[in-house]
Amino acid sequence: MTRLPSIRALASHLHISRNTVEQAYHQLIAEGYVQSRPRSGLFVIALELEKIPAPSTVRQTSFEPSKQVKPLVQYDFRYGNVDASHFPVSIWRKLSNQCLQPEQVELFSYGDSQGEYELRVEICKYLYGSRGVNCSPNQIVIGAGVQYLLGILARLMRSSQSSIGMEEPGYDGVRTMFQHYGFHVHPISLEQDGLNIHELYESNTKVVYITPSHQFPYGMVMPFAKRIQLLKWAEEQDGLIIEDDYDSEFRYDGKPIPALQSLDAHHRTVYLGTFSKCLLPSLRIAYMVLPPTLLAPYHTQDYRLYDQTVSRFHQKTLELFMRNGHWEAHIRKMRNVYQKKHSALLETIQAVMGHYTTVVGQGAGLHILLRVHNGMSESELIHAAANEGVKVYAVSPFWARPDQAEASMVQLGFGGLSMDEIVMGVHALHRSWRHS
Amino acid sequence: MTRLPSIRALASHLHISRNTVEQAYHQLIAEGYVQSRPRSGLFVIALELEKIPAPSTVRQTSFEPSKQVKPLVQYDFRYGNVDASHFPVSIWRKLSNQCLQPEQVELFSYGDSQGEYELRVEICKYLYGSRGVNCSPNQIVIGAGVQYLLGILARLMRSSQSSIGMEEPGYDGVRTMFQHYGFHVHPISLEQDGLNIHELYESNTKVVYITPSHQFPYGMVMPFAKRIQLLKWAEEQDGLIIEDDYDSEFRYDGKPIPALQSLDAHHRTVYLGTFSKCLLPSLRIAYMVLPPTLLAPYHTQDYRLYDQTVSRFHQKTLELFMRNGHWEAHIRKMRNVYQKKHSALLETIQAVMGHYTTVVGQGAGLHILLRVHNGMSESELIHAAANEGVKVYAVSPFWARPDQAEASMVQLGFGGLSMDEIVMGVHALHRSWRHS
Repeated sequence: MTRLPSIRALASHLHISRNTVEQAYHQLIAEGYVQSRPRSGLFVIALELEKIPAPSTVRQTSFEPSKQVKPLVQYDFRYGNVDASHFPVSIWRKLSNQCLQPEQVELFSYGDSQGEYELRVEICKYLYGSRGVNCSPNQIVIGAGVQYLLGILARLMRSSQSSIGMEEPGYDGVRTMFQHYGFHVHPISLEQDGLNIHELYESNTKVVYITPSHQFPYGMVMPFAKRIQLLKWAEEQDGLIIEDDYDSEFRYDGKPIPALQSLDAHHRTVYLGTFSKCLLPSLRIAYMVLPPTLLAPYHTQDYRLYDQTVSRFHQKTLELFMRNGHWEAHIRKMRNVYQKKHSALLETIQAVMGHYTTVVGQGAGLHILLRVHNGMSESELIHAAANEGVKVYAVSPFWARPDQAEASMVQLGFGGLSMDEIVMGVHALHRSWRHS
Repeated sequence: MTRLPSIRALASHLHISRNTVEQAYHQLIAEGYVQSRPRSGLFVIALELEKIPAPSTVRQTSFEPSKQVKPLVQYDFRYGNVDASHFPVSIWRKLSNQCLQPEQVELFSYGDSQGEYELRVEICKYLYGSRGVNCSPNQIVIGAGVQYLLGILARLMRSSQSSIGMEEPGYDGVRTMFQHYGFHVHPISLEQDGLNIHELYESNTKVVYITPSHQFPYGMVMPFAKRIQLLKWAEEQDGLIIEDDYDSEFRYDGKPIPALQSLDAHHRTVYLGTFSKCLLPSLRIAYMVLPPTLLAPYHTQDYRLYDQTVSRFHQKTLELFMRNGHWEAHIRKMRNVYQKKHSALLETIQAVMGHYTTVVGQGAGLHILLRVHNGMSESELIHAAANEGVKVYAVSPFWARPDQAEASMVQLGFGGLSMDEIVMGVHALHRSWRHS
């Protein structure tokens, strides 16, 4: 392996600040091109798949959905809640009111079933600039949520495919959806750097759904080497990769990682994005970028008969929001806001209960997983927290085989809580868990 | 058969105006309880199925989708366009802005996957008062369009059903959707009073999709006798009736006809309604009323994992719109507006080209069908009209077997055109068709 020059040496050699070099190195590490070895320096990673055993200690867990009456919830670590206090309500209202005018006649009738063309142009520009995604507006399909769009995709693939590989654990809303469409779901286990590609080959499925930028829920980034392996798999198997880039805007150690789609020269990737995390979930706007191979069936097989599901007023408002630069500004602002919340959460956990917890999946997104080493099971942790007025969430439903879930792990979403609530919420968690 | 008293006699007997009696009799005729016999009076119809041969003269037609460049469209008789000039934009904007406030915190996060409870309460009240539909808010599922909701229903039924009966002709968007979900669609032919129930029995399917209040596209009302027959079929076959009440607000001869669901004592009807026709299609709001038998699987089989597809802001705005009486007022206003347009269309057609055309399906809704007796085929009629700057639409795609469609028929939607445009559009149609 090639060793990189030290930060000091490269900064001096290029006449730039150490800070700049440090940021660049951080990014290379985050994206998996470079590896840090303690007391040895940074090394370029050879582009081969290295097998690393799965991190989870597997144990039987007794999970039961909690339906009983609970004390008042003071701190809800619900994943999916966002920080609405920083949403630019007045700008959005102003743009929305520009659309709600009698003269905007075309907005009062059915729109393009694929989504408004002008909004697709804006999404294209954003995806190219921020995510490296290469596509034309013609490839973009707008819809009311990622699940809805994956439903269209499931129907598009239905004639040729009947099974799909999914990360285990993975997003249960998508797994259930594919099962409802009659797909057989193959759970593919995770390694420390994401999907076990060997298992994917063995599953004999030709479609895989992944979250490479920030695995849901474990949070790892799929490194460059594995991305190339995955693209090679798709090429060899005549396969399809469904890349769900659900919260890629929020990476706190360095810059966002380019999409897998941007590396795909052979058009075997369907790329999915959403405005639910960075903007607002209640607007219900997401999009899907179809590769040319799927675009033809989408345009011929009666899919034009499916009416668009997103409000045409919201589409137009979002187009104006993006075109006038508010979207990029909002991402920058929210990245900053969530980075502070993320730090507050990690620091408080470390200070208050660092001696009996392990944080999993930090550094990005709007949630972490917490492994709690106090002998409590998942459901015990959740119930104990509820008794102190804190809601934390089960991780086991994300497993197709919940009995293989980690025994003592919970999910904490921090997007919807204020800094103070995060700090106080963690203290309350500690009160509920320390006695065990 | 029992004969009804004459209008004059009943008015005199009850001391009410003749006009009132006439309206009541009209309503009884429209709903199929009473039959008018020329020069004999009105007779109560016996509640038995009477077979009436289908009206259509079946002939081979050469339909080709038109993709070529056309002259400027001056008059677009597109079905689905609505009269936006009477939409109360300023009221809607005011209510919408009440929702778009920083303090409306709950509207900024994911909502109830079934739809906002308060909106479901308003829909319940409306359905009970206007359509006779008996249900609780708990039975209502809100979604971004009837197709989307039928998709949920298709998945709910998938484990037990694999085929569905549909009116022939019928709504192609629904037919295609069920086919994409792997259902076998049985086309059931129409009689003068709607679905041929004998054929439905013979098809051996246990699910049927119908438009009883205003058959799409032919426009007939299913009379009371046949509704009872259909409910009996469902009871005997352990079947399910899907009632799409897409434009029931607009009946111009008397009052709207109560929903089939309101007659169903055995909970075998799924009722569907939409805000696309009477309010605005671009808001994308529809709803489905599930019978208790389907409610249980909906609540248990992971369907709660499907995020709601309608904007939470639009749901809240619509709730306020309904709660404050604007919805009922808007329906009254639009019924009046569309009744005038409907009359203008029929009168102009009668005056200008009554001698070589027959109107099919008048008296309700936002479209009519026009049978043109000038020797032109469907595609010739459409192309000739386009050369005069008028868009009229094909009826044959509504047929599962397009070769059985009527040879010389087109669809004219009048919702989106002004009175003047309707009159001028019909004159332009006459110019394009008269030479044949």
